[in-house]
Amino acid sequence: MPPAKTPRTERSVTEYVDSGRRFTRSASLLDSTVTSNDAFDRWFADQRVRNRFEVDRIPFKDLRGWQFHPKTGNLGHTSGRFFTVEGLRVETDWGHRSSWAQPIINQPEIGILGIVVKEFDGVLHCLMQAKMEPGNLNTIQLSPTVQATRSNFTGVHGGREVTFIEYFRDPERGRVVVDSLQSEQASWFLRKRNRNVIVEVAEEIPPHENFVWLTIGQIHRLLLRDNIVNMDARTVLSCIPFDAPNGPARWGSTGPFRESLVRSMSADQGSLHRTSEVLNWLTDLKSRHALIQHSVPLREVELWHVSADEISHETGKYFTVVAADVQAHNREVASWTQPLLAPVERGRAAMFVRQIDGVLHLLLRVRPEAGVLNVAEFGPTVQCQPGDFRDLPKEQHPPYLDQVLTAEAGRLRYDAVQSEEGGRFYHAENRYQIIEVGEEFELEEAPGCRWMTVHQVMRLLAHSNYLNIQARSLLAGLQTIW
Amino acid sequence: MPPAKTPRTERSVTEYVDSGRRFTRSASLLDSTVTSNDAFDRWFADQRVRNRFEVDRIPFKDLRGWQFHPKTGNLGHTSGRFFTVEGLRVETDWGHRSSWAQPIINQPEIGILGIVVKEFDGVLHCLMQAKMEPGNLNTIQLSPTVQATRSNFTGVHGGREVTFIEYFRDPERGRVVVDSLQSEQASWFLRKRNRNVIVEVAEEIPPHENFVWLTIGQIHRLLLRDNIVNMDARTVLSCIPFDAPNGPARWGSTGPFRESLVRSMSADQGSLHRTSEVLNWLTDLKSRHALIQHSVPLREVELWHVSADEISHETGKYFTVVAADVQAHNREVASWTQPLLAPVERGRAAMFVRQIDGVLHLLLRVRPEAGVLNVAEFGPTVQCQPGDFRDLPKEQHPPYLDQVLTAEAGRLRYDAVQSEEGGRFYHAENRYQIIEVGEEFELEEAPGCRWMTVHQVMRLLAHSNYLNIQARSLLAGLQTIW
Repeated sequence: MPPAKTPRTERSVTEYVDSGRRFTRSASLLDSTVTSNDAFDRWFADQRVRNRFEVDRIPFKDLRGWQFHPKTGNLGHTSGRFFTVEGLRVETDWGHRSSWAQPIINQPEIGILGIVVKEFDGVLHCLMQAKMEPGNLNTIQLSPTVQATRSNFTGVHGGREVTFIEYFRDPERGRVVVDSLQSEQASWFLRKRNRNVIVEVAEEIPPHENFVWLTIGQIHRLLLRDNIVNMDARTVLSCIPFDAPNGPARWGSTGPFRESLVRSMSADQGSLHRTSEVLNWLTDLKSRHALIQHSVPLREVELWHVSADEISHETGKYFTVVAADVQAHNREVASWTQPLLAPVERGRAAMFVRQIDGVLHLLLRVRPEAGVLNVAEFGPTVQCQPGDFRDLPKEQHPPYLDQVLTAEAGRLRYDAVQSEEGGRFYHAENRYQIIEVGEEFELEEAPGCRWMTVHQVMRLLAHSNYLNIQARSLLAGLQTIW
Repeated sequence: MPPAKTPRTERSVTEYVDSGRRFTRSASLLDSTVTSNDAFDRWFADQRVRNRFEVDRIPFKDLRGWQFHPKTGNLGHTSGRFFTVEGLRVETDWGHRSSWAQPIINQPEIGILGIVVKEFDGVLHCLMQAKMEPGNLNTIQLSPTVQATRSNFTGVHGGREVTFIEYFRDPERGRVVVDSLQSEQASWFLRKRNRNVIVEVAEEIPPHENFVWLTIGQIHRLLLRDNIVNMDARTVLSCIPFDAPNGPARWGSTGPFRESLVRSMSADQGSLHRTSEVLNWLTDLKSRHALIQHSVPLREVELWHVSADEISHETGKYFTVVAADVQAHNREVASWTQPLLAPVERGRAAMFVRQIDGVLHLLLRVRPEAGVLNVAEFGPTVQCQPGDFRDLPKEQHPPYLDQVLTAEAGRLRYDAVQSEEGGRFYHAENRYQIIEVGEEFELEEAPGCRWMTVHQVMRLLAHSNYLNIQARSLLAGLQTIW
């Protein structure tokens, strides 16, 4: 007979709640004995100075190792790895455009976005990295401990080993707290997803000049500023199972808004719709509308034109694909060239929130984006590049867009400009806003929208492909409030 | 102010449990006042006689409306709808084959598999259909109320309206009990999924000669026989939220096996692994191993050959693609031709179950199949065509295969031959077995396997792409025991 292994539901539930409590405690510490805020600010400024790099736009012909495939016109790496810019044709009866073709990034491998956490003086700290990415607007940003494509950590690019990758490769090195596959920008990526993982480690971790230990509270402080915490860090942070064990009192929260937010995190509070109803409604939407994706040669994508240094849409809308030459010091390889996707303007990602019977609800909208894995995911209430709609009649604008563009400053609970993935996107940023609406705002949702509590949303986030990357960024923003 | 809508967590939980109880009650009735078993047997025999049809193999050139694309060699319908037989190239470091290409069916639209349920004399009954499918081994089989592709119910094929489709099109016609997207055979289908839906209806439903009302218990009786309940019915049935409210006593169960099964359905009983641990482990597996899928022209698929009447692998393994001429009376259109995928032999799908501290656990294995949507899903303990491995060394056989092939009859808790989807597959059947193993069987799992309780598995089944179609068929088989 094998050694007895005790069924462990009881113990595990305790452990899980315990994780939530410890993350919650870490979120309440806005400064730390390990790295004070002053020390962080100095270190980060120093990182920005010491790790300068140059990114220059170049014509496609100067790319090294990248070429347009003679038959398909797809832009890919000669090794066959990294990613390809190819064509996608979409047919759908969802929204106003029934079919179109567009360039899209196909990066089929699943990368790792991993944060190592460790207790210091009884408080969980996250090991964060100062990382440069060629598309970053703001030089370097704060990234997860590890942010690596499979090509990175299997060494296809011939660079050096990814620092701290061992904590995510070897399950014995720590205790996994969060681990799920989550999607990325489906308007720009074909079925892309990455592993979002948090590992708690007990052993001593050697210090490294590009890494810093921060409490969750310290990271939240940085999330209130523009372009500091990168997208990869935000998506991992959004998955943390926070916990509000004894309601508002324990949180030192003040005012009805925060109280309604804390209630919204609890399993015991009423929600406008029950989760199974939302899931059934979502399935109905996903099967009622078709979204058919065909990969096609980039050469066959109509209305998009390839010039010497740019792939662009003939209206000047959406995005372009450009080539960049990168000279850097603090990275796996010191210089390289690569294509980048450059959106033509700053986007908006706004989420309405509303107290319903004293419980905060988030208004999410189901979005069928071109490259989505499974028809559609929940996104923010509004997510768009407003310029794409400027010349279109009002009835083709996304619902609630005008209300977002005209929201009073007093309604904003979160408002920051954040960057999207700088390894693939050039100067891509969104203004992320959480806007509280009052009782005058209708409870009845526009088509494709649903009010949900934070607890309901967090339960969905334990699984893949329910919340898109912009909704998860907003969830990380919302966490700064509690 | 809008009309108040009360948050309804409380009421909803009650309703949900109530559904579970009512399905459980229906499962306990092995005969019914609406349709007695004798009446069913007569009706079904009569259906088989009255709805005869002829299926003849034809050469590809005799297909009407189907052709090999001159450039790609893909086999598709001239309307561009229904489905295409195309090529798929797979690269993976999972298992023994690192890369291969194969033909695969691409049917990007999401169809409906829907069962209407209604109370008669306080007992839920399912409206089941006697449906012919050209690939069925056994003439007609029992199918859901509606089993329709999007092309079916939007009328692309020019046939008649799908009977009872209105209950699934119009959400006001009933109360949705189950509604989720679930995958289908990923070795043969590229990213295929269908909507699995159950709607409870209160209104009078007109009788129809091809439809019959059965209790869940009556359907379970039929699931014990070979090739009666079709795949589409089994997958919908597997999603029913059964409930064992007061433990074994209420169930009239006898013996420790049934008692352990009933305990396994409960949320309160201990499980060997907690669900979040299983999900983290699954994410780790899915991101540790690559599974890269490239759609390629059928023409470029090596080792597969197209003859006048068959696409086949040069070893004679796996499956062939053939063409069929169908002459039928009881179907949307009375005669047509179509391609069908014909496996070369009967497959095995076996699940080991074991009592662990008095709670039944199911041994599931993570399977990265060629056309899977998101890297891998849980399948049975063993799922294969044994002949595919006959000439390979033992160490390349699937784990546990020998134990399945040599299992004692006294260990079999479920054992029936069931058909796969007869609309796409020709004479495709699997021997489905649930095999109880004792304490001598190791608790430590082979790589890629996990023991889970029924409750854990059912919770995953509320979401998409966790359990593959063979595992769901076995779950429907397991339901016949409780």
